[in-house]
Amino acid sequence: MTQFMDVHHGFEGITPEQLREAHDADLAIEKDEGVHFERAWADPESGTIYCLSEAPSADAVQRVHERAGHRADEVHQVPLSI
Amino acid sequence: MTQFMDVHHGFEGITPEQLREAHDADLAIEKDEGVHFERAWADPESGTIYCLSEAPSADAVQRVHERAGHRADEVHQVPLSI
Repeated sequence: MTQFMDVHHGFEGITPEQLREAHDADLAIEKDEGVHFERAWADPESGTIYCLSEAPSADAVQRVHERAGHRADEVHQVPLSI
Repeated sequence: MTQFMDVHHGFEGITPEQLREAHDADLAIEKDEGVHFERAWADPESGTIYCLSEAPSADAVQRVHERAGHRADEVHQVPLSI
Protein backbone atom coordinates (compact mmCIF):
# COMPACT_ATOMS: atom_id res chain seq x y z
CA MET A 1 0.00 0.00 0.00
CA THR A 2 1.24 3.41 -0.95
CA GLN A 3 0.06 6.88 -0.12
CA PHE A 4 -1.54 9.03 -2.79
CA MET A 5 -2.43 12.72 -2.94
CA ASP A 6 -5.15 13.66 -5.36
CA VAL A 7 -6.37 17.08 -6.37
CA HIS A 8 -9.80 18.32 -7.46
CA HIS A 9 -10.46 21.73 -8.99
CA GLY A 10 -13.74 23.58 -9.53
CA PHE A 11 -15.13 23.39 -5.98
CA GLU A 12 -15.38 27.13 -5.38
CA GLY A 13 -17.60 27.88 -2.40
CA ILE A 14 -17.58 24.34 -1.00
CA THR A 15 -18.98 24.17 2.53
CA PRO A 16 -17.83 21.97 5.43
CA GLU A 17 -21.01 19.91 4.98
CA GLN A 18 -20.36 19.36 1.27
CA LEU A 19 -16.77 18.32 1.95
CA ARG A 20 -17.99 15.86 4.57
CA GLU A 21 -20.65 14.45 2.20
CA ALA A 22 -18.12 13.99 -0.61
CA HIS A 23 -15.66 12.32 1.77
CA ASP A 24 -18.38 10.06 3.19
CA ALA A 25 -19.35 9.03 -0.37
CA ASP A 26 -15.75 7.90 -0.90
CA LEU A 27 -15.61 6.08 2.45
CA ALA A 28 -18.82 4.22 1.69
CA ILE A 29 -17.31 2.42 -1.31
CA GLU A 30 -13.53 2.62 -0.82
CA LYS A 31 -13.20 -0.97 0.43
CA ASP A 32 -14.30 -2.28 -2.99
CA GLU A 33 -11.00 -1.00 -4.36
CA GLY A 34 -8.82 -1.60 -1.30
CA VAL A 35 -8.46 2.18 -0.83
CA HIS A 36 -8.65 4.21 2.38
CA PHE A 37 -9.15 7.95 2.27
CA GLU A 38 -7.39 9.35 5.32
CA ARG A 39 -7.65 13.13 5.10
CA ALA A 40 -9.10 15.87 2.92
CA TRP A 41 -8.42 19.60 2.82
CA ALA A 42 -10.39 22.21 0.89
CA ASP A 43 -9.89 25.80 -0.19
CA PRO A 44 -13.35 27.22 -0.98
CA GLU A 45 -11.77 30.33 -2.45
CA SER A 46 -9.78 28.66 -5.25
CA GLY A 47 -12.09 25.62 -5.32
CA THR A 48 -9.25 23.19 -4.70
CA ILE A 49 -9.56 19.94 -2.73
CA TYR A 50 -6.64 17.70 -1.70
CA CYS A 51 -7.28 14.10 -0.61
CA LEU A 52 -4.72 11.86 1.07
CA SER A 53 -5.26 8.13 0.73
CA GLU A 54 -3.64 4.73 1.05
CA ALA A 55 -4.28 2.61 -1.99
CA PRO A 56 -2.91 -0.16 -4.19
CA SER A 57 -2.72 2.18 -7.23
CA ALA A 58 -3.63 5.61 -8.59
CA ASP A 59 -6.27 3.92 -10.76
CA ALA A 60 -7.94 2.47 -7.66
CA VAL A 61 -8.08 5.94 -6.09
CA GLN A 62 -9.60 7.35 -9.26
CA ARG A 63 -12.17 4.56 -9.55
CA VAL A 64 -13.51 5.32 -6.06
CA HIS A 65 -13.69 9.06 -6.78
CA GLU A 66 -15.40 8.45 -10.14
CA ARG A 67 -18.02 6.13 -8.68
CA ALA A 68 -18.64 8.67 -5.88
CA GLY A 69 -19.30 11.30 -8.55
CA HIS A 70 -16.19 13.45 -8.28
CA ARG A 71 -13.34 12.43 -10.58
CA ALA A 72 -9.94 13.79 -9.48
CA ASP A 73 -8.02 16.11 -11.81
CA GLU A 74 -4.67 14.71 -10.63
CA VAL A 75 -3.63 11.64 -8.65
CA HIS A 76 -0.01 11.46 -7.49
CA GLN A 77 1.68 8.64 -5.66
CA VAL A 78 3.53 10.18 -2.68
CA PRO A 79 5.86 7.44 -1.47
CA LEU A 80 7.96 9.97 0.48
CA SER A 81 6.48 11.72 3.49
CA ILE A 82 7.41 13.46 6.70
CA MET B 1 -3.97 30.35 12.61
CA THR B 2 -5.14 28.65 9.48
CA GLN B 3 -3.95 25.60 7.62
CA PHE B 4 -2.25 25.96 4.26
CA MET B 5 -1.33 23.47 1.56
CA ASP B 6 1.48 24.49 -0.75
CA VAL B 7 2.75 22.79 -3.85
CA HIS B 8 6.22 22.65 -5.42
CA HIS B 9 6.96 21.35 -8.89
CA GLY B 10 10.26 20.38 -10.49
CA PHE B 11 11.57 17.99 -7.83
CA GLU B 12 11.85 14.93 -10.05
CA GLY B 13 14.00 12.26 -8.43
CA ILE B 14 13.90 13.76 -4.94
CA THR B 15 15.21 11.35 -2.29
CA PRO B 16 13.95 10.84 1.28
CA GLU B 17 17.12 12.58 2.51
CA GLN B 18 16.56 15.61 0.27
CA LEU B 19 12.94 15.90 1.40
CA ARG B 20 14.08 15.75 5.03
CA GLU B 21 16.77 18.40 4.43
CA ALA B 22 14.31 20.75 2.71
CA HIS B 23 11.77 20.27 5.51
CA ASP B 24 14.43 20.83 8.18
CA ALA B 25 15.48 24.06 6.44
CA ASP B 26 11.88 25.27 6.78
CA LEU B 27 11.63 24.17 10.42
CA ALA B 28 14.84 26.00 11.29
CA ILE B 29 13.39 29.41 10.42
CA GLU B 30 9.60 28.95 10.53
CA LYS B 31 9.21 30.59 13.95
CA ASP B 32 10.38 33.93 12.51
CA GLU B 33 7.12 34.05 10.55
CA GLY B 34 4.86 32.30 13.05
CA VAL B 35 4.53 29.32 10.70
CA HIS B 36 4.66 25.61 11.52
CA PHE B 37 5.20 23.05 8.78
CA GLU B 38 3.37 19.92 9.89
CA ARG B 39 3.69 17.42 7.06
CA ALA B 40 5.22 17.02 3.62
CA TRP B 41 4.59 14.47 0.87
CA ALA B 42 6.64 13.97 -2.28
CA ASP B 43 6.20 12.24 -5.61
CA PRO B 44 9.71 11.76 -7.07
CA GLU B 45 8.20 10.64 -10.38
CA SER B 46 6.26 13.82 -11.20
CA GLY B 47 8.54 15.99 -9.04
CA THR B 48 5.64 17.28 -6.93
CA ILE B 49 5.87 18.16 -3.23
CA TYR B 50 2.91 19.03 -1.00
CA CYS B 51 3.48 20.79 2.34
CA LEU B 52 0.85 21.21 5.04
CA SER B 53 1.36 24.07 7.48
CA GLU B 54 -0.31 26.24 10.07
CA ALA B 55 0.38 29.90 9.45
CA PRO B 56 -0.95 33.43 9.83
CA SER B 57 -1.04 33.95 6.03
CA ALA B 58 -0.06 32.49 2.67
CA ASP B 59 2.63 35.17 2.41
CA ALA B 60 4.19 33.97 5.67
CA VAL B 61 4.33 30.41 4.30
CA GLN B 62 5.96 31.64 1.11
CA ARG B 63 8.51 33.80 2.97
CA VAL B 64 9.75 30.77 4.91
CA HIS B 65 9.99 28.65 1.77
CA GLU B 66 11.79 31.45 -0.12
CA ARG B 67 14.33 32.00 2.63
CA ALA B 68 14.90 28.23 2.81
CA GLY B 69 15.66 28.26 -0.91
CA HIS B 70 12.58 26.60 -2.35
CA ARG B 71 9.78 28.99 -3.32
CA ALA B 72 6.36 27.28 -3.61
CA ASP B 73 4.52 27.32 -6.94
CA GLU B 74 1.14 27.51 -5.21
CA VAL B 75 0.01 28.27 -1.67
CA HIS B 76 -3.64 27.61 -0.80
CA GLN B 77 -5.40 28.31 2.43
CA VAL B 78 -7.31 25.13 3.40
CA PRO B 79 -9.72 26.24 6.13
CA LEU B 80 -11.82 23.08 5.65
CA SER B 81 -10.40 19.70 6.57
CA ILE B 82 -11.39 16.21 7.57
